[in-house]
Amino acid sequence: MTGHQRRYNALRIVVDNRLRGLVRGKSPREVKDACRYVLSAGGKRVRSTLLLLSCEAVGGTVRDAIDAGAAVELMHNFTLVHDDIMDNAPSRRGRPTVHTKWNVNNALLVGDILLGLAYKQALKTRVRNSAHLIDVFTTGLLDVCEGQAMDLEFERRMDVSVRDYFRMIEKKTGRLISTSTELGGIIGGGTKRQIEALRMFGHYLGRAFQLQDDLLDVIGEEKDFGKTIGGDIIEGKRTFLLLKALEESEGRNRSELMRVMKQRFSSPASTADERRNEVRRIANIYRATGVMEAARERVRRDTQRAETALRMLPQSRAKETLLWFSQMLLKRKV
Amino acid sequence: MTGHQRRYNALRIVVDNRLRGLVRGKSPREVKDACRYVLSAGGKRVRSTLLLLSCEAVGGTVRDAIDAGAAVELMHNFTLVHDDIMDNAPSRRGRPTVHTKWNVNNALLVGDILLGLAYKQALKTRVRNSAHLIDVFTTGLLDVCEGQAMDLEFERRMDVSVRDYFRMIEKKTGRLISTSTELGGIIGGGTKRQIEALRMFGHYLGRAFQLQDDLLDVIGEEKDFGKTIGGDIIEGKRTFLLLKALEESEGRNRSELMRVMKQRFSSPASTADERRNEVRRIANIYRATGVMEAARERVRRDTQRAETALRMLPQSRAKETLLWFSQMLLKRKV
Repeated sequence: MTGHQRRYNALRIVVDNRLRGLVRGKSPREVKDACRYVLSAGGKRVRSTLLLLSCEAVGGTVRDAIDAGAAVELMHNFTLVHDDIMDNAPSRRGRPTVHTKWNVNNALLVGDILLGLAYKQALKTRVRNSAHLIDVFTTGLLDVCEGQAMDLEFERRMDVSVRDYFRMIEKKTGRLISTSTELGGIIGGGTKRQIEALRMFGHYLGRAFQLQDDLLDVIGEEKDFGKTIGGDIIEGKRTFLLLKALEESEGRNRSELMRVMKQRFSSPASTADERRNEVRRIANIYRATGVMEAARERVRRDTQRAETALRMLPQSRAKETLLWFSQMLLKRKV
Repeated sequence: MTGHQRRYNALRIVVDNRLRGLVRGKSPREVKDACRYVLSAGGKRVRSTLLLLSCEAVGGTVRDAIDAGAAVELMHNFTLVHDDIMDNAPSRRGRPTVHTKWNVNNALLVGDILLGLAYKQALKTRVRNSAHLIDVFTTGLLDVCEGQAMDLEFERRMDVSVRDYFRMIEKKTGRLISTSTELGGIIGGGTKRQIEALRMFGHYLGRAFQLQDDLLDVIGEEKDFGKTIGGDIIEGKRTFLLLKALEESEGRNRSELMRVMKQRFSSPASTADERRNEVRRIANIYRATGVMEAARERVRRDTQRAETALRMLPQSRAKETLLWFSQMLLKRKV
């Protein structure tokens, strides 16, 4: 294990511990049980790790940023619980989703409560101007919701462009990541330019992260990823791969891809075998049209941009770990 | 029209105007249309009116409190949109609910966005310690969610006591009202004791307000109230009237009431005529057991307590209007 990996593990544990103690009391039982269930599921803690390291990279201490780190993870989990309702997702991180294990009403309330707890936690952070911190946090929340609204709207549209896609993921996935690095910079007392650099770092990293996620749906290992390979294809999700392939295709390939687009609102009842074949067929079109390689190239380019954004920060251990962490995220297989 | 009534109308318009301009832009269309739909529905603006008057009653100006007034109305509407999903409610204020007019996914997101906008608005308030203001606001949010969770839990319980009921409505209905009066006191720069007095005023008023709501379900005029009379009875809702009547009954009346309790989770398909008869029968039990009068007595007592709490505030026009407003709320027929 490298020093960076050890550091990451330590930061993860710090945040996990902070999250564990948050939900107190037994009653009302269902929502409290479900909140604890969500918070004990772990996860990569990407957002809190980025926040803590960003804080340190501009001269702050991890200790000052733990509550805000917990806050961004709480907000992230709020979005996951509500998104899972909207997507009708049966499982997450290899376990039943909240609305599956309990019911939709409970999941709805659990999301609301996690968001309230996120604010409570963010408010514990000691900074000069806490209104500014909460404002950045709230802008992040609103953008994430807007990104999700765009995603829902895209489901029913057949004319989504690659450009639309990037506008959507910039908000839905990217914003909470850039909000995390920005908040880290604010809490660490960074200069205006340093905070902006961290925000841009998060922006590019977030975009690359989502593209990598799209790629992993086609190439990932089922067991590790905790979800079915090709799930995006089966569900007709508007990913970069699907939209770019559509732009690059004509004739029979195009009809195949259009059929996939329609699956978003008319899920075809098919056997596991049929689904496997479908995924293989579409993945072949992706390879043939070069969109897999195009996505990889974009991941490389955005990673580069993210690293470039960090250059203006002073040399430090935290900065090194940030760079290592972004490399690791984008080379991940799960 | 009295001077108080004119004042109330003016304060309502000020907040309505602030709310109207909040949601900008067209895209994503569905959520934005639905947010505007909710915010244009009007409503009594009880919470913002209380906040604005509370601010003035301790020496602040209405102008300083408008954003926070809009914020509590936004939070209130967030709870309504999400509660309507959970309760499967078809209409509100005489119009289809968001999840009925659009769909559950849109309503879920609209609620989330209204909450985000509530924080944005609250953050615009200029106070010495804005972290404290946001903290009070967030505590209110968490308590309201907890109250709603208790309400959902009660639906499936047959052993809910009158005491449980009061613990629930204190959070679900009462907390946002006492949060509004407390925030008004904070923004107006009130002393610690004044702020506490305003909070207690809101606490008692909120409890009386909910009891009055329970009463109106049995005695209100269908047209004005915008909902079906006896809806609580048909749905087996655990109201003060039902729970208190259960405690006071035995024999056949008790079996009747127990049957109503069970309707919460096994809605019986019946005709409009049957429903009308059912409501009449149960309302008769309520009258026979004296629980209508008991509820009225409690409304009177809590109104008294609310007024007593205000006594320590200096004499002012705003205080007079607060007292008038609470009288009006509790004598309302709709």
